[in-house]
Amino acid sequence: MEALDYHAEERRKAEFDLEEMKIVWAGSRQNYEISDRMARLVASDPVFRKDNRTMLSRKDLFKDTLRKAAHAWKRIIELRLSEEEAHMLRSYVDQPAFTDLHWGMFIPAIKGQGTEEQHEKWLPMAYKMQIIGCYAQTELGHGSNVQGLETTATFDPQTDEFVIHSPTLTSSKWWPGGLGKVSTHAVVYARLITGAQDHGVHGFIVQLRSLDDHSPLPGITVGDIGMKFGSGAYNSMDNGLLRFDHVRIPRNQMLMRVSQVTREGKFVQSDVPRQLVYGTMVYVRQTIVSDASCALARAVCIATRYSAVRRQFGSQNGGPETQVIDYKTQQSRLFPLLASAYAFRFVGEWLKWLYTDVTQRLQANDFSTLPEAHACTAGLKSMTTSVTADAIEECRKLCGGHGYLSNSGLPELFAVYIPTCTYEGDNVVLLLQVARFLMKTVSQLGSGKKPVGTTAYMGRAEHLMQCHCEVERAEDWLKPSVILEAFEARAFRMSIACAKNLSKFSNPEDGFSELSPDLLEAAIAHCQLIVVSKYIEKLQQDIPGKGVKRQLEILCNVYALHLLHKHLGDFVTTSCITPKQGALANEQLRLLYSQVRPNAITLVDAFNYTDHYLGSVLGCYNGNVYQRLYEEAWKDPLNDTVVPDGYVEYVWPILKQHIRTARL
Amino acid sequence: MEALDYHAEERRKAEFDLEEMKIVWAGSRQNYEISDRMARLVASDPVFRKDNRTMLSRKDLFKDTLRKAAHAWKRIIELRLSEEEAHMLRSYVDQPAFTDLHWGMFIPAIKGQGTEEQHEKWLPMAYKMQIIGCYAQTELGHGSNVQGLETTATFDPQTDEFVIHSPTLTSSKWWPGGLGKVSTHAVVYARLITGAQDHGVHGFIVQLRSLDDHSPLPGITVGDIGMKFGSGAYNSMDNGLLRFDHVRIPRNQMLMRVSQVTREGKFVQSDVPRQLVYGTMVYVRQTIVSDASCALARAVCIATRYSAVRRQFGSQNGGPETQVIDYKTQQSRLFPLLASAYAFRFVGEWLKWLYTDVTQRLQANDFSTLPEAHACTAGLKSMTTSVTADAIEECRKLCGGHGYLSNSGLPELFAVYIPTCTYEGDNVVLLLQVARFLMKTVSQLGSGKKPVGTTAYMGRAEHLMQCHCEVERAEDWLKPSVILEAFEARAFRMSIACAKNLSKFSNPEDGFSELSPDLLEAAIAHCQLIVVSKYIEKLQQDIPGKGVKRQLEILCNVYALHLLHKHLGDFVTTSCITPKQGALANEQLRLLYSQVRPNAITLVDAFNYTDHYLGSVLGCYNGNVYQRLYEEAWKDPLNDTVVPDGYVEYVWPILKQHIRTARL
Repeated sequence: MEALDYHAEERRKAEFDLEEMKIVWAGSRQNYEISDRMARLVASDPVFRKDNRTMLSRKDLFKDTLRKAAHAWKRIIELRLSEEEAHMLRSYVDQPAFTDLHWGMFIPAIKGQGTEEQHEKWLPMAYKMQIIGCYAQTELGHGSNVQGLETTATFDPQTDEFVIHSPTLTSSKWWPGGLGKVSTHAVVYARLITGAQDHGVHGFIVQLRSLDDHSPLPGITVGDIGMKFGSGAYNSMDNGLLRFDHVRIPRNQMLMRVSQVTREGKFVQSDVPRQLVYGTMVYVRQTIVSDASCALARAVCIATRYSAVRRQFGSQNGGPETQVIDYKTQQSRLFPLLASAYAFRFVGEWLKWLYTDVTQRLQANDFSTLPEAHACTAGLKSMTTSVTADAIEECRKLCGGHGYLSNSGLPELFAVYIPTCTYEGDNVVLLLQVARFLMKTVSQLGSGKKPVGTTAYMGRAEHLMQCHCEVERAEDWLKPSVILEAFEARAFRMSIACAKNLSKFSNPEDGFSELSPDLLEAAIAHCQLIVVSKYIEKLQQDIPGKGVKRQLEILCNVYALHLLHKHLGDFVTTSCITPKQGALANEQLRLLYSQVRPNAITLVDAFNYTDHYLGSVLGCYNGNVYQRLYEEAWKDPLNDTVVPDGYVEYVWPILKQHIRTARL
Repeated sequence: MEALDYHAEERRKAEFDLEEMKIVWAGSRQNYEISDRMARLVASDPVFRKDNRTMLSRKDLFKDTLRKAAHAWKRIIELRLSEEEAHMLRSYVDQPAFTDLHWGMFIPAIKGQGTEEQHEKWLPMAYKMQIIGCYAQTELGHGSNVQGLETTATFDPQTDEFVIHSPTLTSSKWWPGGLGKVSTHAVVYARLITGAQDHGVHGFIVQLRSLDDHSPLPGITVGDIGMKFGSGAYNSMDNGLLRFDHVRIPRNQMLMRVSQVTREGKFVQSDVPRQLVYGTMVYVRQTIVSDASCALARAVCIATRYSAVRRQFGSQNGGPETQVIDYKTQQSRLFPLLASAYAFRFVGEWLKWLYTDVTQRLQANDFSTLPEAHACTAGLKSMTTSVTADAIEECRKLCGGHGYLSNSGLPELFAVYIPTCTYEGDNVVLLLQVARFLMKTVSQLGSGKKPVGTTAYMGRAEHLMQCHCEVERAEDWLKPSVILEAFEARAFRMSIACAKNLSKFSNPEDGFSELSPDLLEAAIAHCQLIVVSKYIEKLQQDIPGKGVKRQLEILCNVYALHLLHKHLGDFVTTSCITPKQGALANEQLRLLYSQVRPNAITLVDAFNYTDHYLGSVLGCYNGNVYQRLYEEAWKDPLNDTVVPDGYVEYVWPILKQHIRTARL
């Protein structure tokens, strides 16, 4: 059976060098090799199996997660993995766990906001996992509005302690992952109060549970917040609630890098620039964009492979039916998502560069690019995660009825992915921040202050307001310069239109609020432009491997032209293109789909996902879908017995009319 | 606590008569009363509780479903409920069960396709549930292409029997609800073979399980197909797989209303018109449209009520923060969905009329309106269910982080609703049927054959190609005639554009396939027009009750103008409206949102949903959201113990570094 590959013929059609494409996708040969090694390590280890995950009860699922986390930690130590390798291993385990928050939020919070002494005290314990921490920010009543958090940390000068307290029901901490059942410690965000003064929200290290018997410490009420979307998915995580009843912690457990409270209870700001916090946000959001491309690629891989297996209609003279991937309706929904996966990959790569650039500038006390970098990452986080969430569900639909089965992998992928649209900044709130930045940039255009980075195009205001798209034939749409100008002009004119409408309001805040739906659209146009332009920049690099660059060019055009078609109203009403040019773009798009088609399977092979990681019968590498669906079905607990539990009590009496006669 | 109502102030703002609106929503006072009685009956019965549903294991959930189905049947008999009341009671139980297929598919199939003798033999047993049936059509390898089904029913003249057989793996029946564990019988669709001749797919009544001990009969392999999307949701249903190994059934168990096989094995067509089957499809799809409005209303009700409870940002001088329903971004996403719920309700009502009209015509051998009625219901099924599926997820997002909790009700509603986009006709396949019908209608325009029903507007071809929208000020968009003409012109011009492009292909089928993405868009434009025009017709009726009509007018305008904005590219590129008129429509839309705002809570109260049916902490009637979230959390099984199962084996050793030391 080893030679079985239903996709063999599809794979022979590929017009490019797969191995080189794998490296392009991974970002470098080194990344590729680490990623490949870690993926195989996880896939080959029976502890990490996940095919039965959706059938486990909440308690069993949670215990399974604890087991996997412990085993992963054991392997990480045994193999002396680097931090990067360890991170990758955990991500291939593919099951949300308390360790995500310990490594991803607790430690970075202490690193970013703690003093040197605090680093020395807490980080070694955290790195060895002698303590396990989480990040307790969000409350029952406050998410996006962090400044509105209600938990208080009141300094008591008599004892040199902070008193952490939950004054209201809505001040209960709510959602933090790892909090519900596991964490021994938390970074808790609370309003700092000294004397009668409220200094706003600050972070505090608070021990939650005994290191001896894991019981909550006095004054602490802690528990799990209950079931979440899906079976499996985030139910492996102990998202928690937390209430404090006057819990006392030493003064030195306030994270004091940026602000301090002295022994006397005086509130002091350090000279560490507060902008540093934005650097961290750029970092976190950049990883989210990179993760978006992974999740999207995963869904696309499943849908593409299954679309080549599934046949329906179109049989001629008793021959096989048509593969659904050959239908233009399927292609027009699937291939733009395939292109988006690559586009998000490249913009994620660029964001990684942006983060290092920002970091270097911060170290040199250069804050000039920070607002732009912040707006840009906020917008890209919002745009890529929203698109990915919708795309996963679209891929599920593209798999027809069988996509609804848990073992298609898509339901769990959707359920586990969608919180990304909410955490680390609600996607709508983030877009409004982008819009605010765009309006500010527009308002300064005349002032001589040049727009930088991803808003640099706004500096060519005059040109962008006047330029006309010069497309006359469909193939003119293949020119990067033509596409770029159309996207720039559209984004710019939408921003300008918003600015004009805003100026009609006497109170700018009222205007911003009233016009916010339009502002969101302008922000999205700007974000799409960034992705398109970064993809085009990527193509200007040297890309080795037979046919690789050509495929990437095709996908770039698919990405840009499908957006153009989807947002045709924007482009036409701003007179960036004519209706005729829009129709030509659509025509070109169809031709591009035909060029993607023979390469589709190999383009998703390039993601180099193992069958374990994909977790999908429909998307398995060899395409042996129907056999596996049939075999998997019998594993359902309901098939343990021929006659189901409950038959005797509830079905047999109906069939034998015992219910009916009981009435008479 | 009885007087507690966090929404009291919101409810006082309403500018219309709620009781009258409830009747409008229900369709009639009688409907309202039945619906209200059944909803309360279910809500007050502890057997029907569902608040712990997502925490049950598959087996426990299934047993719970059997219990509820038996109890519902008992109540139906005890209370001597009418068929309509029984149906409503089952739908308020709100848990997919084998009974849905028994009543909704098995019995109707026998009624529609069986002969009088077959009715007499099978229906009494089925009505009394002495047998339980399902509808076994879909196979592992075939869904949409019913004519491609592979199961065979070969006539054996020697024994006067059919031999039912599954010749391939892909011929396994797959998906039928109620099949996996419960049904004693099925209507099985199989290729009828007499002699060496294949007569295509026909229905056969086949007994699957012993009526004595429920074991599968010889030659029958049957089981559950496994877990599906979500926790709870359709996992309460035993969607099944079924294989036949030369199973013999008497000849008279072929459903013979339309075709027969004689004792001699001769295949005969009866004089019953085959079009009758389309009548059934119109019926089934009409109920799906009506259900779409219910599901959409449910999601909108939850999101609207929670949006009035949730406050975030905007606190002034320490006062309360702004209700999120007051944000224009929230309104621009939520209110169009509220309007869509009403719009789908009214088009569903009209479809009910259409079905009776079609039925009467069929009885009078008038088939003239059937193709149009069929296309129209196919299109509306597709459009309303796709919109509803997306809208449920949008409502979840509108609830922010807490929408991700199972007890928000939205995850389960989404998971249970989405199969509607696939069953009874895949939504894309259905739209292509609509498109085909539109192209046919266009091609006959010159022929003197007048387009009928919902395509009648195409008869005014000349006018629709030339007309110009006369909007000069935003309020001009409030005129129904202006809206209607814009939607008619857009739909017509899109169809005409497709027809023109099609004519460039020498092979029309190649053209249809190549242009299918555009054809889908034309079909959607046509379907949206139908909904808009039926809503406008509804408003021309006499609608009593203070302010009721006014509210419905506002929602109608919201519905139409949000579509116009969303599809601006269609309207502008076909020159139906100018960019300036598009901007005016958008301006008017914002004004309309402000008019909806004070009535929003009461407009969702009009759906008259019980807290039981909504199944949502966020959407509960009195708005006591945070208290209930907090209380519900403690019910999760993970909170049964303070220290979680698995701590000793997997967490404690990490904290105490037993893993680490093991390595050294």
